[in-house]
Amino acid sequence: MATKKEVRIGLIGTGLMGRIHSNGYNQVPHFFPELEYTPVLKAVCSRDAEKVKAFAEQWGYESFETDWRAIIARDDIDAVDICTPNDTHAVIAIAAAEAGKMILCEKPLARTVAEGKEMVEAIEKAGVANTVWYNYRRVPAVTLAKQIVDSGKLGKIFHYRANFLQDWTISADLPQGGTALWRLDADAAGSGVTGDLLAHCIDTAMWLNGSITDVSAMTETFIKERVHQLTGKVQKVGIDDACLFHCHFGNGSLGLFEATRYARGHKALYTFEINGEHASIRWDLHDMNRLEYFDHADDSVVRGWRSIHISDGDQPYMNRWWIPGTSIGYEHTFTHQVADFMKSLETGEPCSPTFQDALETQKVCEAVLESAATRSWKETGVESFAGFKTELV
Amino acid sequence: MATKKEVRIGLIGTGLMGRIHSNGYNQVPHFFPELEYTPVLKAVCSRDAEKVKAFAEQWGYESFETDWRAIIARDDIDAVDICTPNDTHAVIAIAAAEAGKMILCEKPLARTVAEGKEMVEAIEKAGVANTVWYNYRRVPAVTLAKQIVDSGKLGKIFHYRANFLQDWTISADLPQGGTALWRLDADAAGSGVTGDLLAHCIDTAMWLNGSITDVSAMTETFIKERVHQLTGKVQKVGIDDACLFHCHFGNGSLGLFEATRYARGHKALYTFEINGEHASIRWDLHDMNRLEYFDHADDSVVRGWRSIHISDGDQPYMNRWWIPGTSIGYEHTFTHQVADFMKSLETGEPCSPTFQDALETQKVCEAVLESAATRSWKETGVESFAGFKTELV
Amino acid sequence: MATKKEVRIGLIGTGLMGRIHSNGYNQVPHFFPELEYTPVLKAVCSRDAEKVKAFAEQWGYESFETDWRAIIARDDIDAVDICTPNDTHAVIAIAAAEAGKMILCEKPLARTVAEGKEMVEAIEKAGVANTVWYNYRRVPAVTLAKQIVDSGKLGKIFHYRANFLQDWTISADLPQGGTALWRLDADAAGSGVTGDLLAHCIDTAMWLNGSITDVSAMTETFIKERVHQLTGKVQKVGIDDACLFHCHFGNGSLGLFEATRYARGHKALYTFEINGEHASIRWDLHDMNRLEYFDHADDSVVRGWRSIHISDGDQPYMNRWWIPGTSIGYEHTFTHQVADFMKSLETGEPCSPTFQDALETQKVCEAVLESAATRSWKETGVESFAGFKTELV
Amino acid sequence: MATKKEVRIGLIGTGLMGRIHSNGYNQVPHFFPELEYTPVLKAVCSRDAEKVKAFAEQWGYESFETDWRAIIARDDIDAVDICTPNDTHAVIAIAAAEAGKMILCEKPLARTVAEGKEMVEAIEKAGVANTVWYNYRRVPAVTLAKQIVDSGKLGKIFHYRANFLQDWTISADLPQGGTALWRLDADAAGSGVTGDLLAHCIDTAMWLNGSITDVSAMTETFIKERVHQLTGKVQKVGIDDACLFHCHFGNGSLGLFEATRYARGHKALYTFEINGEHASIRWDLHDMNRLEYFDHADDSVVRGWRSIHISDGDQPYMNRWWIPGTSIGYEHTFTHQVADFMKSLETGEPCSPTFQDALETQKVCEAVLESAATRSWKETGVESFAGFKTELV
Repeated sequence: MATKKEVRIGLIGTGLMGRIHSNGYNQVPHFFPELEYTPVLKAVCSRDAEKVKAFAEQWGYESFETDWRAIIARDDIDAVDICTPNDTHAVIAIAAAEAGKMILCEKPLARTVAEGKEMVEAIEKAGVANTVWYNYRRVPAVTLAKQIVDSGKLGKIFHYRANFLQDWTISADLPQGGTALWRLDADAAGSGVTGDLLAHCIDTAMWLNGSITDVSAMTETFIKERVHQLTGKVQKVGIDDACLFHCHFGNGSLGLFEATRYARGHKALYTFEINGEHASIRWDLHDMNRLEYFDHADDSVVRGWRSIHISDGDQPYMNRWWIPGTSIGYEHTFTHQVADFMKSLETGEPCSPTFQDALETQKVCEAVLESAATRSWKETGVESFAGFKTELV
Repeated sequence: MATKKEVRIGLIGTGLMGRIHSNGYNQVPHFFPELEYTPVLKAVCSRDAEKVKAFAEQWGYESFETDWRAIIARDDIDAVDICTPNDTHAVIAIAAAEAGKMILCEKPLARTVAEGKEMVEAIEKAGVANTVWYNYRRVPAVTLAKQIVDSGKLGKIFHYRANFLQDWTISADLPQGGTALWRLDADAAGSGVTGDLLAHCIDTAMWLNGSITDVSAMTETFIKERVHQLTGKVQKVGIDDACLFHCHFGNGSLGLFEATRYARGHKALYTFEINGEHASIRWDLHDMNRLEYFDHADDSVVRGWRSIHISDGDQPYMNRWWIPGTSIGYEHTFTHQVADFMKSLETGEPCSPTFQDALETQKVCEAVLESAATRSWKETGVESFAGFKTELV
Repeated sequence: MATKKEVRIGLIGTGLMGRIHSNGYNQVPHFFPELEYTPVLKAVCSRDAEKVKAFAEQWGYESFETDWRAIIARDDIDAVDICTPNDTHAVIAIAAAEAGKMILCEKPLARTVAEGKEMVEAIEKAGVANTVWYNYRRVPAVTLAKQIVDSGKLGKIFHYRANFLQDWTISADLPQGGTALWRLDADAAGSGVTGDLLAHCIDTAMWLNGSITDVSAMTETFIKERVHQLTGKVQKVGIDDACLFHCHFGNGSLGLFEATRYARGHKALYTFEINGEHASIRWDLHDMNRLEYFDHADDSVVRGWRSIHISDGDQPYMNRWWIPGTSIGYEHTFTHQVADFMKSLETGEPCSPTFQDALETQKVCEAVLESAATRSWKETGVESFAGFKTELV
Repeated sequence: MATKKEVRIGLIGTGLMGRIHSNGYNQVPHFFPELEYTPVLKAVCSRDAEKVKAFAEQWGYESFETDWRAIIARDDIDAVDICTPNDTHAVIAIAAAEAGKMILCEKPLARTVAEGKEMVEAIEKAGVANTVWYNYRRVPAVTLAKQIVDSGKLGKIFHYRANFLQDWTISADLPQGGTALWRLDADAAGSGVTGDLLAHCIDTAMWLNGSITDVSAMTETFIKERVHQLTGKVQKVGIDDACLFHCHFGNGSLGLFEATRYARGHKALYTFEINGEHASIRWDLHDMNRLEYFDHADDSVVRGWRSIHISDGDQPYMNRWWIPGTSIGYEHTFTHQVADFMKSLETGEPCSPTFQDALETQKVCEAVLESAATRSWKETGVESFAGFKTELV
């Protein structure tokens, strides 16, 4: 272990993502022992000193800070991991870039394209390694979907559809804002389901199917006012509770997307389906270890959708885990991304999605919101999409 | 049986729908023996004398004709059943109405709203019983969905989504037009998947969830030219191969619809889902005897989507068939509509969907096509939707 | 139609099976118009004159009788269809055979092997056409399973498992005996779930996988006493409420079978699975239009169970019905058997399962019950199993 | 962290289970930070010095040994974790008990009841904390099943059925014996699927449904001879490739069990179902985060099996992990058992399944094998089954 090159992590934010990234840093050495680079949990930052101290102890960070600027100022930090609400991504990332730190930033990249562009410029100027945590690319079933698409088995693509359905904000009694509910506060989040959920769908979609060129969208805010936790007052809700759009992809296929937090019965149902001339693929986060695949080349009388349990060693990432038939969980996707980031330092290749990739997704999100606001079609301005290599693991 | 009131049927068209309606007329006396009115297979009409004669023998029609006008001219016909391509619906229906015949017309009502309005006017002027064969309303699972919605169990509705996915026209070698493939010929069909598939989705949606008020749509014709069977020449394809739209319902919920014949792996996957404040419902034609239902009132630790096998006597129409656990098929939905039509003659109530109801669906279809053509939102002009009683059977 | 050869049917019994067979006779001319022989509904018999008269009118029988002997005595009856409780199968079938009638007998063939042997002897002596209504062979998905097995795709077979789970007799308040509940009365039924449900499983199993050679079984009667509807008294329950057994097949594979009427949540869940060296098959009556198929020859990373929707014209029997993606129902399996019986008169081939075939199933049932009673393994005495041709339709 | 009481672990065996237990020890402090006792990875043992050194580095063990006796001899080890092949469980466990170590032993407890009894005696004499890694009890869905059963919601139980189907030994080219394939070597494993797979099914079954009193079984060895990796010679295969049995439970319900490694298409399909008077439960390892539940008390027209996604904070163990809708994996069940073992040291309650509990499962396994060998029913001798508290986490 002495010969490993250390990547000293400074984590900012101790919510769900702070926990799950910390798990990834801890797990990578156990499951990817061959990597040349290894993460070291150097410091964690959050505003509440007592809580961040406890977090540091729980997860094994050597130290803690209560001001994110202190993390960036430290010489013993190589990489900054940004797990704070969306309104802080830009300022932290730009400062970190200027300090020459590698950056791992939670998604969405930013609240707006303008913020995102500044971030990309800062990264590029600094020339630092970077990645954005669109973790679903590294669900083994989704990575396999990418491999199938790249193999050409689907032929010409006609349709891509995805949705991300939740039901946790239906109650009108739920407040907005504050530490736990910043996702309902437009100032902190930038948008509602568009940045939170559709951004995932769009990232996966463009990775699998290329650029989205123009969109026509609608949004809705079902509950117009909620108590704000910071002010204690009933305030207008600024986020989109639901967002639907259809679009063209650069390859001529049609896209259909929907996200909502008002779909009773769905906790976090992220699904996508892609229909090609010769074959089709479906996936569903609730059953994330399965991929459904239809191959028109099968003999017609026994042709049907295959339910593939992704748990064999020849399926993406699965040689790292257990035995055929056994499942992995949600957090493993982040662990995979940590591993791929470490590997990227070794190879010198980018660890996609990079800030630039995530900016493309941001462009689509912004076009979607503008389309909904103006009730008209919008060009996204996405010209290309670099994609991602799936050969790594 | 002597005391039954006869409804002497004149069927026009001997394709798939001609067969399946004929089956319905034959089956109703066996499974709905209490009905006061009973269908009698008086005459069938198709242009090919030899074929229509064989059809008459096979299905038990007393006679046959080769000109539809002959059917309408006959005194011994009470009801005309229109199973011909869409371009003939209006002319036949209007003539039939003028002759005082009851009319059962295949869907979509017409190629355009203008045609549909003329048909409704003719029907209203003549005051004859009428219905349109939007058969999916009478899938027991779908009828049960209606009963659940009407019970108020769902609470406020947030979302309605439906799609109708097929894959039978992917081959570029498939010709358009002629007897078998008139659905690919814009002149005969009026439109592609919009009138053929989305019309079903819209009829069910408005029945379950009320009027659709405005729409934003996109269409695509993936294969631009095909040989026309009547001319033998390669001609431009005028139909929509795929159509997607989002919309508002009058009750404030958001709708999302998609239909295509280019979704590899789906033979005829008609699905819908409706998400309410308290409960949600899903259905899928491929497994038509099941309804999925989620009730948020269930105890939280054992809450989940229920897969309900619709085969018990207390579920809609199922007291007519077999025993719990056993399935019925596609054709039964038409048999149910025949039964309900006969019953409507007894009660004097309309047998929905009526021509008027179907005209409302036509308005949405036309708004969808206009929206796609102009890349803009369109009002549908649907002001209300009468709905349908589910208490009958 | 004049040239068709008539098979004049005399139906005995007007319960569920009487209805569903009548439907089959009515439907065959519509869906199998090419058949040389055609059923004619000549007479129906049941003890209640008023009810049988109504039944005759409803289903189109020309006449009715109230004594089954009258059916057999009539010269204008060619084929006797036995739909009465099990205790009457032997006496009616033997009398019918002696009168030279063709016989279509409901399953199980008899209450005992001894009864069954007499019936087979009578049939053979008379040389009359015969069949037993093990209808599940003619579910298209099951027929396709047979074709797959016969093709050799499965390779050597290791396992066969089947169960038939119901839940309709759990209430202790349910009486036994009488017209509706004769299945709970050991005198009338011969046995409980063994003859009613396992007989189906065994018939399918031996058809698909060959002879069952020896068995080890257990049975249970959960509710020991029930009111008898004929006597009005609380009487001991003589039937098996549940029966489980494992066995060897002649081909060396292992079998596992279970039937019960105490499996809460299952209306009529008949499932089977067969595991071969190269491929496996699963089926489930609740979703009868689907077959699940696993082919180990598929590329390993995209290998999974295929869910095949059996609704295409190249799948068994399905060229007779509707269009891809649409379902057929439970009653169609009986319609298929009527068609195959008519066809067998044309070809001179037996219409399996014949009385002889059904006697082999009876032997397994009896060995199962004896094994349970003696808590020991029993040989079945089944030496071979003729099988069935699937090429017909 | 300074105040935690350390439980210094000595792990013996570095195969799949060695890895997954090590993961559990590493993860417990992150996800169960409130525990008073905490595992410390003191030493790991395996015969190959180079490999065990690498394992120690990878997983964070402070030291390593190449002779298990050295682990037991060390004063700085509090608990011995036995992950070696079955033939070494007894000798190691007895020595560890005599040395006063706590013991965590992989399942099955032993090769035979005789071995198991000696182990229990040693444990009891030493009075040391102990547990056996029947990990499936701590799948959250399975723990929830236990809570539902204990709540009485199922009412009287009629049926319990379970199977464990694999397909990894179908090839005749697979050798037996040696490090990787000791499960195929009867000397090392004691039995085939009975100890490997059925033991899991039996443990869960008796935990959920009480004691199994008598059994009737059959076994089969499909491939009679395989090359032995240690001798290089073709030798008789001594294990059972498949085992099926039915049984009575002490509560009067009927059990049906099957395990095989010859069920093509199943990687590790462990399923169970329990049918009660009022409700039923099903579970399937391939989709381990789901539980299916049927409640007869639901309104009849909307009654169906519920598919419950076990990922909410009020479901067992799930408040430790992520957010509703997200999955956990196979290894988490071992992490849960580590946590529960640590907790048991705090409460002084046993951490079930204890050696005594596992001995009861061993008795059933042995009765099953004897029943199969003698083709007769066997009493198991299991008199009671202590069960397990589910309130902990």
